[in-house]
Amino acid sequence: MNEALRKPLDGIRVIDLTRVLSGPFCSMLLGDMGAEVIKIEPPGKGDPVRAQGGIRDGLSWYFASFNRNKKSVTLNLRSPEDKTLLERLIESADVLVENYRPGVLAGMGLDGDTLARLNPRLVTCSINGFGSTGPYADRPAFDFITQAMSGFMSVNGAADQPPLRSGQPITDLVAGLYAAFGVVNALRARDLNGQGQQVESAMMNGILSFMAYLASEHLLTGAIPARTGNNHPLVAPYGLFRASDGEVAVAASNDMVLRRFMRTVGLEHLLDDPRFDDNPKRFARRNELNTLIDGQMVQDTQAAWIERLNGAGVPSGRVQNLAEALADPQVLAQEMVIDVAHPGHGTVRMLGFPVKLSGTPCEARLPAPELGQHNDEILGPLR
Amino acid sequence: MNEALRKPLDGIRVIDLTRVLSGPFCSMLLGDMGAEVIKIEPPGKGDPVRAQGGIRDGLSWYFASFNRNKKSVTLNLRSPEDKTLLERLIESADVLVENYRPGVLAGMGLDGDTLARLNPRLVTCSINGFGSTGPYADRPAFDFITQAMSGFMSVNGAADQPPLRSGQPITDLVAGLYAAFGVVNALRARDLNGQGQQVESAMMNGILSFMAYLASEHLLTGAIPARTGNNHPLVAPYGLFRASDGEVAVAASNDMVLRRFMRTVGLEHLLDDPRFDDNPKRFARRNELNTLIDGQMVQDTQAAWIERLNGAGVPSGRVQNLAEALADPQVLAQEMVIDVAHPGHGTVRMLGFPVKLSGTPCEARLPAPELGQHNDEILGPLR
Repeated sequence: MNEALRKPLDGIRVIDLTRVLSGPFCSMLLGDMGAEVIKIEPPGKGDPVRAQGGIRDGLSWYFASFNRNKKSVTLNLRSPEDKTLLERLIESADVLVENYRPGVLAGMGLDGDTLARLNPRLVTCSINGFGSTGPYADRPAFDFITQAMSGFMSVNGAADQPPLRSGQPITDLVAGLYAAFGVVNALRARDLNGQGQQVESAMMNGILSFMAYLASEHLLTGAIPARTGNNHPLVAPYGLFRASDGEVAVAASNDMVLRRFMRTVGLEHLLDDPRFDDNPKRFARRNELNTLIDGQMVQDTQAAWIERLNGAGVPSGRVQNLAEALADPQVLAQEMVIDVAHPGHGTVRMLGFPVKLSGTPCEARLPAPELGQHNDEILGPLR
Repeated sequence: MNEALRKPLDGIRVIDLTRVLSGPFCSMLLGDMGAEVIKIEPPGKGDPVRAQGGIRDGLSWYFASFNRNKKSVTLNLRSPEDKTLLERLIESADVLVENYRPGVLAGMGLDGDTLARLNPRLVTCSINGFGSTGPYADRPAFDFITQAMSGFMSVNGAADQPPLRSGQPITDLVAGLYAAFGVVNALRARDLNGQGQQVESAMMNGILSFMAYLASEHLLTGAIPARTGNNHPLVAPYGLFRASDGEVAVAASNDMVLRRFMRTVGLEHLLDDPRFDDNPKRFARRNELNTLIDGQMVQDTQAAWIERLNGAGVPSGRVQNLAEALADPQVLAQEMVIDVAHPGHGTVRMLGFPVKLSGTPCEARLPAPELGQHNDEILGPLR
């Protein structure tokens, strides 16, 4: 890293009207890339997440982990004076991000035309549930609901079990990440065209885009994809196999990998056995095949098989709980768990930076701010 | 939309060495934003996905849906002549994206130093399983394996059922989206600093970053998050409730929404009942409470409750299968299903664009290319 290099979003000021999760995740991604993110919070309690999850030394670690690299300014947006201050801030900014329900910002007097008049170069970004047009534009949204409506739950779960939500708040996070991608693109378009525009990222649209080949198969054939648990809907062998001391996840993703897998477990001959010599046969006799594989794998340990299979080019690993995942030597080597000093609240351990840039790496430049910590710094020059 | 406006990535040339899913998703996102994406494929069969999934009129719809807005050039990277052509292409490019295992590109003679010498302004992007440093850097990767190792599966599933993979190839897609975000940021850094850099997005790191508050709670308390199926781990009421003709997903995400929910189902008085007057009590008596709510909701239809609850500001919806989701009026209003003409192969229906930009919207400018369709156009000037 060359310290003299400017961060990707150096010089970009983001006015952040978001709260809770999808929006703060977006603005954190922008802050991690070097933007100055000014988090606007109501006086008193601020972002509700400040009071959520486990608190240590007066600080929510959930809040800390989604609000690094931000400054906090308190404004009462029902007060005319503070609304004027917000307008001055908007004039000084490059980006405004919000995750209100569509129409709420306009109801506060900040419709698209007003924003464009205040600052024609402003990129505005709305993160919402269903998009700002269409029959559900006004609906309140929540991760669980968009997981249900998008089809995500319909393909998540075991074949003989009901549809299931993800344990991760996935539609919030996908929407936040798409929003950040949209904002940076809109900033590039502004460099080319000289004007800002409106970016919109809806939770429903984001998670739908992740239906991937499930969607293309459905759109081609009309067939409705089923839940298949940990089994691949089309390919065998694939799934969890039993070593002597635990399970090993194996994905024999193509014929070459399949042959390596069967060779490594001492069953390559089965690929010439008329019972198993093509994928449809293997799939039809999946239980029989898996039993034969388990019979080999039970003769050695999980760790030995994972080492041996990966060495042979067969993707494999174990199912780890979150404690194991976050203590995994690879995860630590990738600095995916970092310690950030929060003066007055001790050191907070949090997830690191998922995108690595060799020249301008993301850094925790600022800990999550105290409520209103930057009022003087940011609002002072505007008064 | 103003037709005269330039797209965000207008003028950006991407050399795309990726295949299958994570990489092609990244390069599609860049193409959707206006980049010229040149997909390099081996002569003969090209990207394996050309032969995967349902085929109509000689075209894989899975391939078509992940390779719009790209051009195809065939190069045999084992031939010195074609490697020279690739180097000429790299000299002409802004971005190079690949999803080989770490080290494979260097093994082809295209290590970081060589790439930087060929083109100091080049942004290179590697999408891989575990990152290019650390003990697992050399491991082959596959979506199922990173779902297993990251902890995703450990929190996905019913409380009394085993850990479960997502039905979506989620770690591929998250890594592809982060990669695209990283590339656009690196292009902005190049605008500021005059030089390219290396971007890296690992499937394991991306999905870890989605552990969100699950990670912050674990890092604070050491507790290992459990699977909770469709129930919220901490909040009640929350989940699926029974209307007369089907279930309704409801998320009473905070006290205000909870009160609206209970009022709408005619049970507001329970919030003053000593059995249910705070969340810990409601959570402890969750089954009893859910039975009371079901008793009210069974008196009307799914559609009526969804209308009524959303109208009252309570996020709610139904669990839709993929056919229902892709025919949902909101999804259609958001143009999340689009038709793209593929000359010689009919019209392909595919997912639309999840990020909406008001001034420079994404468009399907080009259908997925025939193998080598753009050899003359792209390679001609280099020969």
